[in-house]
Amino acid sequence: MIRGQNPRAPHERGVPGAGRAAAAAPLRTRRCRAAPPTTTVAVERPAAASAPTCEVGGVLHTPHPSSFLNNNTSFAEEFRIRGNECGADQHANITTIANLLQEVGGNHGVALWGRADSGFASMPGMDHLIFVATRIQLRMEAYPKWGDLVRLETYFAEDGRLATRRDWHITDAITGAYLGAATSTWVTINMDTRKLSKLPDSVRSRWLSLAPSPPRAVLPPEATKRKLPDFPADAALTGPLVSARRSDVDPNGHINNVCYLSWALEAVPQKVYEKYNLMEVEMDFKAECHAGDTVQVLGHPLTDLSNGNGCAQQFLHALRKPDGGEVWRARTTWVPKAKK
Amino acid sequence: MIRGQNPRAPHERGVPGAGRAAAAAPLRTRRCRAAPPTTTVAVERPAAASAPTCEVGGVLHTPHPSSFLNNNTSFAEEFRIRGNECGADQHANITTIANLLQEVGGNHGVALWGRADSGFASMPGMDHLIFVATRIQLRMEAYPKWGDLVRLETYFAEDGRLATRRDWHITDAITGAYLGAATSTWVTINMDTRKLSKLPDSVRSRWLSLAPSPPRAVLPPEATKRKLPDFPADAALTGPLVSARRSDVDPNGHINNVCYLSWALEAVPQKVYEKYNLMEVEMDFKAECHAGDTVQVLGHPLTDLSNGNGCAQQFLHALRKPDGGEVWRARTTWVPKAKK
Repeated sequence: MIRGQNPRAPHERGVPGAGRAAAAAPLRTRRCRAAPPTTTVAVERPAAASAPTCEVGGVLHTPHPSSFLNNNTSFAEEFRIRGNECGADQHANITTIANLLQEVGGNHGVALWGRADSGFASMPGMDHLIFVATRIQLRMEAYPKWGDLVRLETYFAEDGRLATRRDWHITDAITGAYLGAATSTWVTINMDTRKLSKLPDSVRSRWLSLAPSPPRAVLPPEATKRKLPDFPADAALTGPLVSARRSDVDPNGHINNVCYLSWALEAVPQKVYEKYNLMEVEMDFKAECHAGDTVQVLGHPLTDLSNGNGCAQQFLHALRKPDGGEVWRARTTWVPKAKK
Repeated sequence: MIRGQNPRAPHERGVPGAGRAAAAAPLRTRRCRAAPPTTTVAVERPAAASAPTCEVGGVLHTPHPSSFLNNNTSFAEEFRIRGNECGADQHANITTIANLLQEVGGNHGVALWGRADSGFASMPGMDHLIFVATRIQLRMEAYPKWGDLVRLETYFAEDGRLATRRDWHITDAITGAYLGAATSTWVTINMDTRKLSKLPDSVRSRWLSLAPSPPRAVLPPEATKRKLPDFPADAALTGPLVSARRSDVDPNGHINNVCYLSWALEAVPQKVYEKYNLMEVEMDFKAECHAGDTVQVLGHPLTDLSNGNGCAQQFLHALRKPDGGEVWRARTTWVPKAKK
């Protein structure tokens, strides 16, 4: 029953038991063995089916349970990269990594303080105060592929009188290889007044007791908090006008800030997007977006695009609302892809 | 170091150890115990850190390993719902579920035939042939929340002379509760000619040996393959013009078809989006999209929107390219949300 679709250009996707006819792997099923003893959540699970299961862990890695490390001062989770998180080169794109930073940060809070009924997890004593990210810097040495298991370890630190910091260390969970790192700056504001508000000393000291001492940092301090230039009046690059989608709304009721990054990448020249890897992004968050908001996507090269092989390229990015208000500014650094 | 952001409207997101100040859960860390013996992928892992880890499985569920079931005729995986996959009500949206359908379908192929170097997994003997989805129908009784562990079991069947079918059964992995089901129709086409092409008998019989016998179906046959009406000339609803983003490209080099669904939802009236749950979507795939394509989003009510409490609402949806070519047509069915 073909239902009248045009067979010349239907949508290719997924596998009803197969997919693109590219590989020559032999037809095989994985070795069977008895179901392993469950560990972490055994008491909550319904009884396992009596039929023996065939494990496929050799090709489909199973994440280790989420865990605290280093005397409970850091937290680690593993994620298997999904197909829809990868582009045509089968590698995860930067928005995938940015989403995982959010997830492991949120789950760190959940692991410490339990799950909140609204928004993300929250720390007792934080009444009317919320943490908001003002800056995230993400540096990737290599991107994982579809099916790779990545491990993110995260921890926090104080950062001056009003700010706090969260860092992430990203590795390949199977090989242990270093993939990248990220650091972020957060402030606390009063939910009602929307003004900067100091964390009460009692909350701050309790919170710091959960941070590494002495503080750990994933990136050299001199490589972080580099000021972003003002965005020029004559942007050389523009992306399509963006309308924030309902499906981009997160549990806080705002547009997930990872969307900003995917919008901004639309303004990068095609040659750079294809031939370079995005090595680093430094993002300043300036305002929030809601579903239905219209956003202008601007970009500007900071390097000479006619530079030859081997040279890194940098761009400045800005997202603006129709009234000119800046939502987000960022700098991206791109390095040429390795020749195959 | 606040770096000059406007503190009145910064971007709220994630938790540097906390988040929104909403819950009153006591400050606690989870009980510690020795690291569990690893099971599935133990031989591939680097040695575990010597420090004891604190498990947080009671609140952060760990997926069971992917597995074959029922004499290798079905395949199951578990996924923990991420924060960025949920909307303001903390529940997963339909695009999250649709992405998981793709992932478990793709991984079923990987588990059977290994990982391909391009596109998704592929079955030996499929030279120049690819499976393409022509139709997916997804019915959800309930949506999981952030942190819930969902389990998807999938299997395939033949469907007439040229088509094949893949079904999915979706449950809460912790409670076993039924969440939803999906079924899909696939055809094989020749990659070079782009024409419908029959699967060679030898490949088909080998493939069918991996399907349940007799065939299993997650939805009653009379509830599937219901023809979608022609889209009316005078669409009552339009969404913003969409520009397909680079970050929406999947490993096949096309726009991930789940994006179609998120685009189409933009045309649904706000009242319906807020007050109703999307219970079912029936999608016909008619053409593929590439990054940069511009797509018109159209919708049309099939029910009287002035109907009162308790009535389901239905919409017809279409996505069209500027030349009028239809990319995708769908019908959505919405039921009122339960009163809290």
